[in-house]
Amino acid sequence: MRITLVGSGNVATHLGAALVNAGHRIAQVWSRDLQNAALLAYHLKAEPVDDLSEIRPETDLIVISVKDDAVETVASFIPIKNVLVVHTCGSVGLQTLKKYFDTCGVFYPLQTFSKTRELDFRSVPLCIESTDKNSTARLLDLGRSISNNVTYIDSAQRKTLHLAAVFACNFPNYLYAVAAELLSKQQMDFGLIKPLILETASKVQSFLPQEVQTGPAKRRDGQTMAAHLELLQQYPEWQQLYTLLSQGIIKMDEPPSA
Amino acid sequence: MRITLVGSGNVATHLGAALVNAGHRIAQVWSRDLQNAALLAYHLKAEPVDDLSEIRPETDLIVISVKDDAVETVASFIPIKNVLVVHTCGSVGLQTLKKYFDTCGVFYPLQTFSKTRELDFRSVPLCIESTDKNSTARLLDLGRSISNNVTYIDSAQRKTLHLAAVFACNFPNYLYAVAAELLSKQQMDFGLIKPLILETASKVQSFLPQEVQTGPAKRRDGQTMAAHLELLQQYPEWQQLYTLLSQGIIKMDEPPSA
Repeated sequence: MRITLVGSGNVATHLGAALVNAGHRIAQVWSRDLQNAALLAYHLKAEPVDDLSEIRPETDLIVISVKDDAVETVASFIPIKNVLVVHTCGSVGLQTLKKYFDTCGVFYPLQTFSKTRELDFRSVPLCIESTDKNSTARLLDLGRSISNNVTYIDSAQRKTLHLAAVFACNFPNYLYAVAAELLSKQQMDFGLIKPLILETASKVQSFLPQEVQTGPAKRRDGQTMAAHLELLQQYPEWQQLYTLLSQGIIKMDEPPSA
Repeated sequence: MRITLVGSGNVATHLGAALVNAGHRIAQVWSRDLQNAALLAYHLKAEPVDDLSEIRPETDLIVISVKDDAVETVASFIPIKNVLVVHTCGSVGLQTLKKYFDTCGVFYPLQTFSKTRELDFRSVPLCIESTDKNSTARLLDLGRSISNNVTYIDSAQRKTLHLAAVFACNFPNYLYAVAAELLSKQQMDFGLIKPLILETASKVQSFLPQEVQTGPAKRRDGQTMAAHLELLQQYPEWQQLYTLLSQGIIKMDEPPSA
């Protein structure tokens, strides 16, 4: 497929590389910043542009891969009408693109991307949605050319999926940061808890998280929880977080009320 | 070494196996429940007992591996005085054992254990502490016979380390459970976000969590955060959690106030 990439961020960078590796051709790369466009376009052997009016209609697919809250603005400036257009965002409905394009869809890679980190795209779940059967078939084909895990997910489901991803990725990462900060205040190395972090995530690859919950709240160890809250005295927000998360763990074991 | 194992839970099970694999001999296994003692003792070729008064002095080390809040009670019933005694708990100070034994220490494996899941003990960080240089040397030697990652950590540091472990393991696991619940309510499979969970934990093996934070709060995407809170309408506790965690992520980027 000939593909036009609108955006040059983390997702665009990883997705572009995966598409080129699978034998697709990237026609143009757009970024607000011409240098960013040029950098990614160089790697993908594409033409860089920094003006959405320069996007050419000689392409099979336009992929808008910008921040969730910029999708609509960017879409409104793309002058092409007869090409399939998708975005790659978890939280943006198909409706947003429908205002501007007849045939459009979503091509949402459910993964956390950093430019500096290599990643095997074949293991990234791809969530597909579109306005019509023909586009769906094309997007499923394209998805399968770069990933082993392609699913049709509608906009309502994707909203929840994106929310679940925030709970499963963004929030745990923040808690890792809290742990790192606590250790560093006591001259301990973050490296000490890295195996624990990895094992916790590995466990839920084969068990449901509810089944493998451990820790003071799980065993109703009030003495330890009180000692932890005491240690957090200087961090009222983390105390509140500790309490709320521990209450959640305790509640998880209770039978649902009638 | 001849070792007596007091306890038959997750930690005792994994630790006992690692010790036997490294060529140590388990003399006795105690559990309140004789069946549990017998089961673990069978695997470790040891003698099972369910009465602490039956523990024999012909041993080099007594390992108390029971729940954090049971350590003191169990210690008070062990009739032996001239043997090195350690516990394996993150939140219990050395002080607690000192009340009952002259030479004592801590042998804390910093990992999350489930009986049903195999684990390579060599990658488990072991945190050692003791009352005297001789015991420290013996515990470091023992630790190195089963793990590549043995560190001396004093009781004050270990308290913080245990708290950090709750933030890095128990709380993220709870958030995985929340994600699983949200997905299941919308007929989606938890499997969809497993790669995301694993990649999030893998990332912080080579980067600091602060450096790889992503998501709506990180990019100050108020529209997406509002939509997520709306989706959580039926779950006031999770709304509160979402807000608190998002505020934490936003605050993490702010320069410390003067």
